[in-house]
Amino acid sequence: MKKKQEISSEPNNEIKPVAGGGLLDRRLFLKRGLTFITATTVTGASGKLLAEEPSSDVEAIQPRQPWMLKPGKPFSNYGQPSPHESDVIRWISANSMASGNGVSWSPLHQLEGMITPNGLHYERHHNGVPEIDPEKHKLLVHGMVEKALMFSINDLLRYPMESRICFIECGGNSNAGWNSRPVQSEVGYFHGLVSCSEWTGVPLSLILKEVCIDPKATWLIAEAADGIAMEISIPVEKAMDDALLALYQNGERLRPENGYPLRLLLPGWEGVTNVKWLRRLQVTDRPVMSRNETAKYTELLPSGKARQFTFVMDAKSLITSPSPGQEMHGPGFYQITGLAWSGRGKISKVEVSADGGKTWAEAELQEPVLSKCYTRFRIPWHWDGGLAILKSRAIDETGYVQPEREVLVNERGNHGYFHYNAIVSWEIAPEGYISHVYA
Amino acid sequence: MKKKQEISSEPNNEIKPVAGGGLLDRRLFLKRGLTFITATTVTGASGKLLAEEPSSDVEAIQPRQPWMLKPGKPFSNYGQPSPHESDVIRWISANSMASGNGVSWSPLHQLEGMITPNGLHYERHHNGVPEIDPEKHKLLVHGMVEKALMFSINDLLRYPMESRICFIECGGNSNAGWNSRPVQSEVGYFHGLVSCSEWTGVPLSLILKEVCIDPKATWLIAEAADGIAMEISIPVEKAMDDALLALYQNGERLRPENGYPLRLLLPGWEGVTNVKWLRRLQVTDRPVMSRNETAKYTELLPSGKARQFTFVMDAKSLITSPSPGQEMHGPGFYQITGLAWSGRGKISKVEVSADGGKTWAEAELQEPVLSKCYTRFRIPWHWDGGLAILKSRAIDETGYVQPEREVLVNERGNHGYFHYNAIVSWEIAPEGYISHVYA
Repeated sequence: MKKKQEISSEPNNEIKPVAGGGLLDRRLFLKRGLTFITATTVTGASGKLLAEEPSSDVEAIQPRQPWMLKPGKPFSNYGQPSPHESDVIRWISANSMASGNGVSWSPLHQLEGMITPNGLHYERHHNGVPEIDPEKHKLLVHGMVEKALMFSINDLLRYPMESRICFIECGGNSNAGWNSRPVQSEVGYFHGLVSCSEWTGVPLSLILKEVCIDPKATWLIAEAADGIAMEISIPVEKAMDDALLALYQNGERLRPENGYPLRLLLPGWEGVTNVKWLRRLQVTDRPVMSRNETAKYTELLPSGKARQFTFVMDAKSLITSPSPGQEMHGPGFYQITGLAWSGRGKISKVEVSADGGKTWAEAELQEPVLSKCYTRFRIPWHWDGGLAILKSRAIDETGYVQPEREVLVNERGNHGYFHYNAIVSWEIAPEGYISHVYA
Repeated sequence: MKKKQEISSEPNNEIKPVAGGGLLDRRLFLKRGLTFITATTVTGASGKLLAEEPSSDVEAIQPRQPWMLKPGKPFSNYGQPSPHESDVIRWISANSMASGNGVSWSPLHQLEGMITPNGLHYERHHNGVPEIDPEKHKLLVHGMVEKALMFSINDLLRYPMESRICFIECGGNSNAGWNSRPVQSEVGYFHGLVSCSEWTGVPLSLILKEVCIDPKATWLIAEAADGIAMEISIPVEKAMDDALLALYQNGERLRPENGYPLRLLLPGWEGVTNVKWLRRLQVTDRPVMSRNETAKYTELLPSGKARQFTFVMDAKSLITSPSPGQEMHGPGFYQITGLAWSGRGKISKVEVSADGGKTWAEAELQEPVLSKCYTRFRIPWHWDGGLAILKSRAIDETGYVQPEREVLVNERGNHGYFHYNAIVSWEIAPEGYISHVYA
């Protein structure tokens, strides 16, 4: 009654590759029908293909499952994922001596689209998630201002708001890329200290105008209400540009691990500057030179100088599928998909290579393409079953091109730990095993 | 040490209203600083405004709260909202005789931005939420096709995908609007059978090309795997246009109550056609005339004829703040905000009135403005403390204008139950109480 469709392992004449290794025109699937992969052809009891009218044939081929034979579960006040998705989680990597210090990784390899659901937004905490009572939390804005002001959350909720969809990425994301040998793990557990949400809040520029900031002020020192009173220095220029005092994340109020009830949002800037649990903004004319902007989130360069206050996250991209830990299903058609983002603005192009970087083809970018936001890219690929090396390369609207690993390592040296954004390579072995390689 | 700022209850000369009742230019807050609402001015122990350097003054004015004096909570695999947000829930309204029949309302009055978080997407079930094992769930596509095909979820996950952010709205949303007296409740518990997510899935057109659909076919009958095998008829034209077989919602796999593991997504079309738990698509040349497209989701018109297969959700808008159940804080500046959407395409304009519809001012639309998607609108307002009637009116790119209630009721008669999209009016009483009125 059922048989698997045959796999067409050779692209026909109409489906000519646009680059080496079998990359196909990015709009191919939209242009024409294509027997893509293996659904099952079904025929009825008569041996004919299933007739139009529902019949006993349908029941025989697709019997009602047990969940159709009884009423389903009732409504819920706040929904949760299916129990069958219990492996789609943040992977926790915390300090064994201090459970609130570490990270949890967003499972990029299990997600699609550009929005990160709130439960799976990556975490980076220095001393855990404070349990803040929003009625008692205040924001103090003081220093080089005409009038210092104290804001309750209810005060801030009455201000004009803006929304923007943008990524936040930890400056230490992908740092295993600095290792001399390629780390083997699922993409999210290696590159998943980045997430993308719709944030809504009060433009910080409004608040700075309201306190009448001194025109000579050049820095803000932002302080968190966590157990280490984490602080970091922010140039006033960024604060007056597109910074938000974020109160909402993907429609609802911030999650505790993302700064509830208030976080600073600096679109495109490294995660640590997007201060969570924000309690104080001190306006000043010099940076505070805290641990997180001197010992950490900086790089010692080959010249012996340190790279500090880099702030903007450079353009980056990753292929999330196929990727290590996933299965290939034999030769045939695949859709390669992944994410690209840039702290400098919009992604203008993503190129994909299936031959280790010898040739490149342009991927389709999912609309809307937004500034400082994830951009999902996709391109069809015909895998001939041989050895293949997949790469993706992001180019942003400033013309910045994501570098090959060798270029990045040459430039930054081998003391690197932060701000790794090199091109990532996956090797597909003939038997279908996918591994991370430096190529 | 602290004093509340004075409220400026009169707009000054530079802030001239652009419409009656105190509506202001939509870009006003971006253009200039403005003492908007009441933060608290703070001075140090010396009586001077707080000095630049952190000092004992800061500690005295903003002492460390208990949560700063200990390490915070550890990392979590899947995050949840703050316990302080436990009142931000879907409000359940189910049949007392059949707990799986009814709705739960999305709390629009407590949300911001355009994304609905997955836990708060509205629900409408006819017989509860089936607990589906994705390994056993199949989609059968048969009928007027060259070859009937059966797809497992794993088969579908290998197909090319697309993402789009769009709303889904129940055809019965806002049906209390047909009542002869205005219902009093929070906006979400009256208009919240609508939500907006980023959906990702396989274009249905690809699948229909793959089964080689008969060119004479005009309808698809979609069947759900719930306890009533809910079925509904879909014109082939829509299926070939922008329909998706959705597998992901806001980045993660669908939630059970939103059709896990597979739902039909028909952007801009009424909710019931976006069949959840999709198990069968029968290609045919006539509609099935099921209960949900004959007795329900249709309207008996004054002419005695029934309005059937309306499908497209007309343009609609709502002011979510200020709105019933919320508090006014005395005369002064407010930001009016709300949502607009249209099943026909993009929202081109939202107009707001503060004088019951006598005069209107154009609201600012939050970018990106997407087709068949929520559009958040915002406009500043200076409330003088007198009686005010707020309205919003959506206009979409086809030129369709959201009608006043009287016009809609005249057109559809008083047997209406579905497809209510009239302009909504909130009355602000001088003491600040907000109520729903027909005005």
